[in-house]
Order: sequence, then structure tokens, then C-alpha cells
Amino acid sequence: MPMMKAAVFEKAGRIVLRERPRPEVGPSDALMRVTTTTICGTDVHILKGEYPVAPGRIVGHEPVGVIEELGSAVFGYKPGQRVIAGAITPCGQCSPCLEGHLSQCGGKAMGGWRFGNTIDGCQAEYVLVPNATANLAPIPDGLSDEQVLMCPDIMSTGFGGTESADIRIGDTVAIFAQGPIGLCATAGAKLRGATTIIAVDTVSERLAMAQRMGADVVIDYKKTDPIAEILRLTGGRGVDVAIEALGTQQTFESCLRVLKPGGVLSSLGVYSGKLTLPLDAFAAGLGDHRIVTTLCPGGKERMRRLMRVIDANRVDLGGLVTHRYKLDQIEEAYELFANQRDGVLKVAITP
Amino acid sequence: MPMMKAAVFEKAGRIVLRERPRPEVGPSDALMRVTTTTICGTDVHILKGEYPVAPGRIVGHEPVGVIEELGSAVFGYKPGQRVIAGAITPCGQCSPCLEGHLSQCGGKAMGGWRFGNTIDGCQAEYVLVPNATANLAPIPDGLSDEQVLMCPDIMSTGFGGTESADIRIGDTVAIFAQGPIGLCATAGAKLRGATTIIAVDTVSERLAMAQRMGADVVIDYKKTDPIAEILRLTGGRGVDVAIEALGTQQTFESCLRVLKPGGVLSSLGVYSGKLTLPLDAFAAGLGDHRIVTTLCPGGKERMRRLMRVIDANRVDLGGLVTHRYKLDQIEEAYELFANQRDGVLKVAITP
Amino acid sequence: MPMMKAAVFEKAGRIVLRERPRPEVGPSDALMRVTTTTICGTDVHILKGEYPVAPGRIVGHEPVGVIEELGSAVFGYKPGQRVIAGAITPCGQCSPCLEGHLSQCGGKAMGGWRFGNTIDGCQAEYVLVPNATANLAPIPDGLSDEQVLMCPDIMSTGFGGTESADIRIGDTVAIFAQGPIGLCATAGAKLRGATTIIAVDTVSERLAMAQRMGADVVIDYKKTDPIAEILRLTGGRGVDVAIEALGTQQTFESCLRVLKPGGVLSSLGVYSGKLTLPLDAFAAGLGDHRIVTTLCPGGKERMRRLMRVIDANRVDLGGLVTHRYKLDQIEEAYELFANQRDGVLKVAITP
Amino acid sequence: MPMMKAAVFEKAGRIVLRERPRPEVGPSDALMRVTTTTICGTDVHILKGEYPVAPGRIVGHEPVGVIEELGSAVFGYKPGQRVIAGAITPCGQCSPCLEGHLSQCGGKAMGGWRFGNTIDGCQAEYVLVPNATANLAPIPDGLSDEQVLMCPDIMSTGFGGTESADIRIGDTVAIFAQGPIGLCATAGAKLRGATTIIAVDTVSERLAMAQRMGADVVIDYKKTDPIAEILRLTGGRGVDVAIEALGTQQTFESCLRVLKPGGVLSSLGVYSGKLTLPLDAFAAGLGDHRIVTTLCPGGKERMRRLMRVIDANRVDLGGLVTHRYKLDQIEEAYELFANQRDGVLKVAITP
Repeated sequence: MPMMKAAVFEKAGRIVLRERPRPEVGPSDALMRVTTTTICGTDVHILKGEYPVAPGRIVGHEPVGVIEELGSAVFGYKPGQRVIAGAITPCGQCSPCLEGHLSQCGGKAMGGWRFGNTIDGCQAEYVLVPNATANLAPIPDGLSDEQVLMCPDIMSTGFGGTESADIRIGDTVAIFAQGPIGLCATAGAKLRGATTIIAVDTVSERLAMAQRMGADVVIDYKKTDPIAEILRLTGGRGVDVAIEALGTQQTFESCLRVLKPGGVLSSLGVYSGKLTLPLDAFAAGLGDHRIVTTLCPGGKERMRRLMRVIDANRVDLGGLVTHRYKLDQIEEAYELFANQRDGVLKVAITP
Repeated sequence: MPMMKAAVFEKAGRIVLRERPRPEVGPSDALMRVTTTTICGTDVHILKGEYPVAPGRIVGHEPVGVIEELGSAVFGYKPGQRVIAGAITPCGQCSPCLEGHLSQCGGKAMGGWRFGNTIDGCQAEYVLVPNATANLAPIPDGLSDEQVLMCPDIMSTGFGGTESADIRIGDTVAIFAQGPIGLCATAGAKLRGATTIIAVDTVSERLAMAQRMGADVVIDYKKTDPIAEILRLTGGRGVDVAIEALGTQQTFESCLRVLKPGGVLSSLGVYSGKLTLPLDAFAAGLGDHRIVTTLCPGGKERMRRLMRVIDANRVDLGGLVTHRYKLDQIEEAYELFANQRDGVLKVAITP
Repeated sequence: MPMMKAAVFEKAGRIVLRERPRPEVGPSDALMRVTTTTICGTDVHILKGEYPVAPGRIVGHEPVGVIEELGSAVFGYKPGQRVIAGAITPCGQCSPCLEGHLSQCGGKAMGGWRFGNTIDGCQAEYVLVPNATANLAPIPDGLSDEQVLMCPDIMSTGFGGTESADIRIGDTVAIFAQGPIGLCATAGAKLRGATTIIAVDTVSERLAMAQRMGADVVIDYKKTDPIAEILRLTGGRGVDVAIEALGTQQTFESCLRVLKPGGVLSSLGVYSGKLTLPLDAFAAGLGDHRIVTTLCPGGKERMRRLMRVIDANRVDLGGLVTHRYKLDQIEEAYELFANQRDGVLKVAITP
Repeated sequence: MPMMKAAVFEKAGRIVLRERPRPEVGPSDALMRVTTTTICGTDVHILKGEYPVAPGRIVGHEPVGVIEELGSAVFGYKPGQRVIAGAITPCGQCSPCLEGHLSQCGGKAMGGWRFGNTIDGCQAEYVLVPNATANLAPIPDGLSDEQVLMCPDIMSTGFGGTESADIRIGDTVAIFAQGPIGLCATAGAKLRGATTIIAVDTVSERLAMAQRMGADVVIDYKKTDPIAEILRLTGGRGVDVAIEALGTQQTFESCLRVLKPGGVLSSLGVYSGKLTLPLDAFAAGLGDHRIVTTLCPGGKERMRRLMRVIDANRVDLGGLVTHRYKLDQIEEAYELFANQRDGVLKVAITP
């Protein structure tokens, strides 16, 4: 049985590199040889034991690679093709998928999120892609691994937050937090035609990157009260769309406080503990507000579109990869990323 | 100066009948002689001092009557026509109105709600209708005052909750609380093609009325745990849409607990105190859930459509009027309604 | 090799009963033993040579039956279950499916329509259901074959026309032609909350059935000019939605002539020859009109919802089956149906 | 009675400069002193007698100017403000406006188009703006007249075509004809996130301008068959959205021929003569195609958003003004523009 290296969750606080058997291909699967992958904030939650996965699970959900082998029922591909798969791998055939809720595949919350969660993930030399016909997306010629590395998760998620909010030409949009997902939301807001984009964070590199991604105004919340400032900038009117990209009470609440009546709070963060709606900002439920949540959209058509955004030079996410590691160094990469040291935004991991 | 009788909010705990000058008509106004009106749950909040209005304000926002006089800039009507106006009276000309947020007219939360709030209301012999061209809706021949009495507020609100949720043919819908608005939401869910409608309350008359309005299943939450029962009824799948029609933590939270991933929580209640999102039911923000709030839609086209629903016999809300009073007895009517005595659903008040 | 009887298209003018080998089950297929099926207007087009299918093709696309055998990759079912499949059998895994264009599966126009078109159909003792995981829908207990016989095609199509048009509460809707699909569109318009439903045809049985399905007004176009009458009924305003359910220049054009500015023409018919837009009615392209076309929605979730409509007694389509035949008599059934003799609406065929 | 100069339609073939009385202000009107305006293709249709307006009508519908006087019922402005008004001036208060069909104000097709059509227009020293509260939009400080001159009509129309089609991130869009409106559609497609934008025309200056507006590919249809080329570019898949920006059978039909099943044909042109749907490309009505038409969206909020697009440097339409004239020279300007001489795109007219 051929073996491979893989980053394995063993227990809270411990993700380590292990030897594991290379997976066997079932009829609907594809085996991908991973050429580049990355670490997500969610992986850090897993590492810390804040999000439960089974001990022994190979982690990682952002694969870029090459098709090694195809299951008997998979059609439309051939071995050797460079491909990506989304973090979310819908089956396309269950009722939720057929109704368009691809991320909630199977009808359980987050059911479409399998990699590094309910099946083995891609921080490894090889990864098995389930429902491969629906999920393998060929990489356009001329795009490097790093150029498409953000497509499987953070670009899809960040853009998704702007799409769920149905941002329109001329909208005013505030994005709270400018980590990788918030930065992608900023880029997505510009791509959909928002004309006043206000990005809030406190890390100066992130605010600088936000401007590169399209922010018209950046606010360092440690220096300026973002709520007062956004209301001032909008003449008291509030924003059309507020995007939450962190997952805290404060950012969620701030979104509501700057939102116009009839506006949309688009939530991308993963919350823990308690989450309370401030009733004054929520107009006691009578403000025609909408709160929409978005789990990273997946499937091969989604991936095709996102790679096309890159290929057409509409957005340049290259600057997001700040550090590079070999798979052998993944424990070190986790250490850096989990502690947000050295101005890290995203790391590239190459097996 | 001609005088009229009117129910006036004086201070918390005190709404009384007073003599007041009949209002004078400005260029965009119409003077309506009120022939029937009613009391809303919101009026009770005002009475109790829970929702602040200026002392001296005439209350009431559900007018049925006859045009007495028209402002110089009003067109399309003539005195003597029987009309209604919605509880919400949008101007149609401000930016929020032009973008379709009619209830948030002027850009302040609830800005379209003027009657008995920011201007004098209709629990009186006469009421001034602002922005009359946009708000007067002629009553079809053959419909009585009582038949259209629910259109200005509760029918528009209850139906609105089903429209904001975009209920579709074949949806499963749960409605928590079957007061007047919840009952109208039940009727609206049926009218939009929901095929499994589950109504939750504990008052047996309300549950019986819910069945008349279209509920396929009724649940008395004091006898049966509604969450467990709804999950059982849906095979664990959850509902497509959950409608909150009361304004409490418990009903709001119950909605989330029975909602499928990708489903819509449509909120109609007026909340007070604190409102918390249960993160387990909310999938930590990753369930593609949407929370939509709806303030009663207004304007003459809305009223025309709702009266047409009645006229075409699609819904019979006649049974909702359980008690009738003269305007002179309005203090008595408040006493009954505020205490929910005698199985009251809605009262009709005739000046 | 086990044999079966099947209705086979041999050449224009000729569909005959033949012995054919029972199909073999591939990994994604299910073999269904057909217990009831029917003949569609499209089958008559095939018979007449107006729609091309390969000689030797087994026709029919509306199967009700029992699972006989399941492919190795199919999950969620067991042999012996009573099921239906839609006329359209999307794969769920191609780009168009993943974007929600299930009927255009594979990216070719009508690509989702396979039965009796690009693969063998169900006017036979057995039929192979492709992409079975996405397409088999269990029949609720207590519903007969005939009760669900309209779900695979005409109910899905007729309802689809009202959904694509986004019919809203209070809409005025005209439906031109009241054959089986038009009748289902009439039922669907009511189910979505239209309050003035105007059905146009000339066959008195069909107009009577239209009233049973929910039409508020019926117009016999041989006795009354439908355009003038509909404009009269709407006070010159026109309808919100006009549904074309026949496929002729005259009905298409009539739809535009009764449509309000900003209204939707929802087209269900299959057109031949030429189709011209009358520019006066089309306001030279400046009327904010929308023309939407709908091919029968398919997939198991769609079928589940439609059967639920029946099961919840929202619509009774039982009256549509006017004639019953054994599979052995199918040539006779075609003869009756193709010539629209004897007041036929739909026939039930039982192997 | 103060007089003013104005361009007046007298009869087919004849628009001339005349002295006319300066208009008197009614309660809902504003008098605008025009500082810049332009000539539209529609004005040329009027000139040629192809679109009927009353003899004596002052033409022009794209006003930039200064508030001179306000009617008694107008609120929110003061004389001296620099403003624009849209070509379409909805009342906001009729049923179609309240339902969001602002361009079809009053319920007649094109009812919102008043300037230079049903009331006097703005190719004059002064123009009366009807429904002024809903229609006056202040020009942001720092923007010149010419910078906002495209907002009232062609920018609103061109962008509108991309909005009605609901262009999404990653879409492939073809725009047929790159006159001023087509160029704005090209810019709008980019602004909404289309990633493959294909512009078709034959005038080299227009194709060059199309590239500046965001086209990824330009096709000179005299040199290359645009249908074959677009199908080639999309791998036979067709485009997600095809925009018609001329108003001819050929461009309309070409749109359908390059459109994918499930795609949207967004029509902006004004058609004359006959318009035929090619049934092969239309899949006989079964391709889930949608055809949407858009009349220039108006109202002050629309204008505010479009000026913000300019102010935020999202789009630079400056290059569209190729020629400048004094109002005194307007007959000369018409002569140039009507004959499309000298590479003219748009002219600026200053009284």
C-alpha cells in the first residue's frame, strides 16, 4: 500500500505530520496529487479544539493539484489535468443541492464541507475528491498554483458575502475586519459595483491591502470610532450593506449600528459563545433589515468563475500569500499562522 | 373651528376620548371621515408607555372611511369616495421610497409609520391622510368596512412576512404565535402555495382559527414541544420558512431551531429587552440562514391588492373581528383588548 | 435476455408496440417497472414527425412505477419503492445544473429532457432512469398512480410558468389556452396568490375545467375578443402576467397585447414556423416587458414538492385523466389523443 | 413674460431654435436653468419623424443645470443648487411607481418619459422639472457638467441593461453595437463583475472606446462573423448574457444565436418595423431563455448613484463627449449627430 505524508489532527493543540496510506478511489471519487495548499482560520479553530473533528483526521480544505486517478463513474476529465476543488464539495444530487443550497449538501448544516471535516483533507501529498464530476475544476493555462490558491475558500467566501447581499451599482458597503476573508469581501464589493467601500480593521498592513483590494476609505478602529465615522461619511444615512468578516459580537453589532433601514447585514464570520442582536439598532425588528449568512460556495462551476476572475485580471489576490512552506514544515506554518506572527495573511504549502 | 372626538394618548396608562379640532388640509393631504377603525397591539404598547409617542397624540393607524376633502396637489380622487389608507403612508418621492423601501420612508427606521406615531391617527371622527395621492385606495363596491378593516395593518403585515420569505409552492412553513398577525401569516402562507403549514399557539380559539386560515397542523405548545414535533413532522429536515409573529426570545429562538439549513426566518414581532441568536441552531453563522424583518407594507397599490384578495374570496378574515364598539366606548374597548379578555382577536370601532 | 413491450417511434406517422430487450442497469441508473404513464402533446409532435427523434426510440416521458433494480452508485432507495421521475432528468453535476439550470443539463438546449428523446422512454413495461439518485421521488403513501401522473410533466410545466413569472399575491393573470398545461398554469396561478385569473380557450369542457382549477373569468375567444375583454376587465391597465400555453403566433401575440408595461409574458408553448413580436404591443422594446420561457422543471425535489401539493389537497388534477388504456392499446390511445377526440384531456396508460 | 431660446420640433425633418416663454412653476415643479445638455439618438428619431411628438414641443431629455425656482410643494432643495434630472421623471405616487416600475409611471408604456416627449424638454435655456421632489439630484462638488452629462440617459440605460440581466461575477457577456448606450452597457458589465466581455461593432473608434470601457474582446462584424467567433470563444457554450444596444432584427437575432440555454437577452434598442424570434436559436421556446427590456431608469436616487460611480472613479465616460456646441448652434449639432459624422459619439450643448 503506497504511503503519503499528511497533516493529521490528533487532539486539541496538536496537528502533526504523519505517514498515512494513500487513499483508494471509489466510483465517484478522484485522487488528486496536491501541488499547493494553504491553512485556513478554520484549521486553527480545529487545532485549538474549538471546532471538533475526529482524531486522526487529515486536515485542510483548499487543494490545488493534478488528477492522479479517476473513479469509474467520473466523466469529463483525464489524469494529468491541473485542477482545483472547492472547500465545499456538493454532490449535486440531493434535495438541498437540487434546490441550490449546495453548501448545505445532504440537508445537515455545513453538510457540503467535507474536506478536513467529515473526510480526510488536503494538507497531504494526495487527497480524495468526493463527487468528483461536480467538483473538479481545470486550471486555465497560464495561471500558477498560487494565483488560484485562494479560490477554493476565502475568495469564494468573501465574494459570496457580497453576492448574498446582492450588492448593486452605487451601493455603500462597510466591511468589518480585513483578514483574508474580509479582504476578499472588499475585492468582491468593488467587483459588484459598490462605489463607497469602507474597510475597518486595525492592522496597518491589512488596511493597506484593503486599499489595494478596492476600499475607498479605511478606518483603524483603534484610532477612530468606526460607527460614528461611517455614519458621518454617509450623512447619517447608514450603509446599504454591512459585511461581518470576523465572527465576534462587536463586529456583528457594529454592522447593525451602521446599517440603513432596509439594508443587509451579510455575515461571514464563525461565531462562538453568545451572539446578541442590539434591539435599538435592529429597530425592534421593524427596520426591514435582512441578515444573511454565507458558507463558502463550492462546485466546479463556482471554481471556474473564480479562476476566470483571476485570469481576466479583475482582481489580484497574489499579495495575500505572505509566507511559503514545504509540507514537511507544516507544523511550523501552523505555529506562525495560528499566532498571526510576522504580518502573515496566507501561507502556501507545497508537498 | 369644527371639532371632533378622538382617542388621545395622554401619558403611560392613559388613552382617553377628547374633543379636538378637525384637522386642516394641506396641499398633499386628504381629510378622511373615519367610518371604521380598530385597535392594534402596537396601540397597547403605546398605552402602556412601552412605545413612546408625544402626549396629546391621537392614536390609531387602521382607517376605513370616506374622502371629505382633498388637498390642492392631490389627484385621482373625489370627495365622497369610500377609501382606506395603509398604516404606513409612504411619500413615494424620497430616496428610500424610490428604491422600494416604502416602509422606511425618509430613511429613518419605521419612517413610513406616521399615523398615531409622528402625526395624529385615526381613532377619531376624522383623520388627515398625508401623501394622499400615494395612499388613498378606493374600496371595491360590495365590500363592507369590516371586510377591509384588516388590510391597513395586520393583513399587510402577516402577508408581508410570507412575501419577504419568498414562500414557494411546496414549502413547509411554521408560524409561531397565532394572534391577528400570525393568523394573517398563516393565511398568506397558504395563499403563496405552502403545502405544509404548521401553526403554534396555546389558545384553543386561535388554533381553531389557524385551521380556518389554512394551517395543516396546529400545535399547542403547552401540550406538545413544538420544536420536537416540527422536526418529527419534517423527518428531521426542518422547515423551509419559520415565521415569528410575537416578538419574544422564545418564539424567535424556536424559529431558528426548526429551520433547515438554507432556510428563512421571517420576523414580524416587535421585540423588547434582549434578543439572542442561539449559535447551535444558527450553525455558528455557517448555515446559509437568512433572517428577514418586515414592517407592514403600505401605499395605495398594496391596499388595492389586499382588498382584491378579499373581493376574490381568496381569504376570509371576517372571523377576526370578535367585538364591536362605538368610538365613544373606546376606553372600554382598550380595556378589553389590552387584557385579551373574552377571546378577543380584533375589535371594530365606529365613530 | 428478458424482453418487454414498448411503444416505439419508427418513422413519421408511426408509433407502434414492439418487443424490446429490457434495459440493463448502469452504475448511476435505476430500472423502474412502469405501472402507469401517459401521452403528452410532445409525443404527438414526435408521432407526426414534427420533432425529430431517432427511429427505434421508445417514446414517453411521464413514468410512475416501482423500483426494480438500482445501479451500484445510486443511494437512498431500495427496490420495491413506488416512485416517479420527472420528464426532465438532470444530472445535478454539470455546470448548468450546478448553476440551477437543471432543465438545460449539459449545456445544450433542452439537455435535461432525455426520456423518449435522447434515451428510451417510459411507454413501456420498464424504463431506465438515468442519474437516479437525483431523479427518483418516492410516492407518498395513500396517493394513487393517477393522482401523481401529472407531476412528471404537465403539472411541473404549468406551475413552472407561474413560478418563472414570479406571480405575486394580488396579481392579475391571463392564461391563453386551456389544454392540460394551460389548466395546470391556471391552478398554479391560484396557488401562488393571483386574485384575478382569466382563462382563454374555446372548448367548453376546458373552460369548465379552468373554472375548477381556479379561473375567476373564462373567455371563449370564438365568442368574445379576448384582448378587448381583458383590457376592459382590467380597466385598460393590462395584466401583470400573461401565460402562453399553446405555442402559436396568435396566443403569443395576444399575451403581449394584454400585458401591462413592466409585466411578464411567461411562455410555455412549443413554437414552430415563425414567431414575431408585435412592436406596438412591445412598446418598441421600451415597455420594461420581460419574456420568460420555461421547460418543465425536473429532479426529485421538484417531484416531491408537486406530490405534496396533491397530498395536501391544494389542487385536484384528478379530473384531467379522461381516458384509460392498457399499454397493449397504446396505438388506439395515440389515435384518440392526437386527434383530440371525445373531449380527451389526458389518458392513463397501464402496462 | 420672460423669454428663452429652445430647440423646437416643428415637423418631420425640422428641429429649429425658437424664442419661447420661460415656463411657469406649478406646485410640484422646479425650474432649472440648463447649463449643459446633449442630443440623444431618440431625438434624431423625433427629428426624422420616426417617433411622434407634438409639433411645437421643445425637445431634449438630458438636463444638467441649476435650480432657479421651486414649486410650493417641493421640499429638500434650494435655489442655486447644481442638479441633474433623469430623462425619465417618475411621480413616485402612482401604482406602477409604488410597485417599482418607475419608468412606466402612470401605467402607460414609457409613461415616465416626459421631457421632450409629453412635456417640453431641456434643449433650451430653462426646463421645468415635473415631480421635482422625486427627480432633482444634486451634483457632488468637484464634478463638472460634462462629467455627469451621461447620467440622465445613456449611462442609466446602458447600466440598466446589465442590471435587468442580473449580470453576476464571472459572467460572459456579449454586447451588440457600441454606440453611446452600448458603450455604457460595456462599462456596466465590467462594473458588475462580468469577466469575459465581448463587444461587437464595426467602427474602429467605437471598438477602441469599448476596450477602454472594459471589453476583453472586440469584434468587427464586417471582418469576423460575430456569432461564430463568440461561440468559438466560449467553447460552444454561449454567453450568459447578450445585450442588444441598437434596435435591429440582426442584432436582436444575433443575441439569441450566441446565448446559452438559460441565458438572458437584455434588450435596450428601440425597434421599428418587424421583430422576429428565430425559433432555432430560441429552442422553440424551451431553452429557459429570458428576454428583458429596459427603459432608462430615472428618479433622484438613481441619478445620485450614477454620479457616485463617476465621483468614485469607477468609470470614466469623459471620452464620450466628442463635440461641443452652443445652444445657438444646435441645428448644426443635430446635423452632425444625425449623420454620425466626424466620429461623433455624444455632443455637449451649452446654452
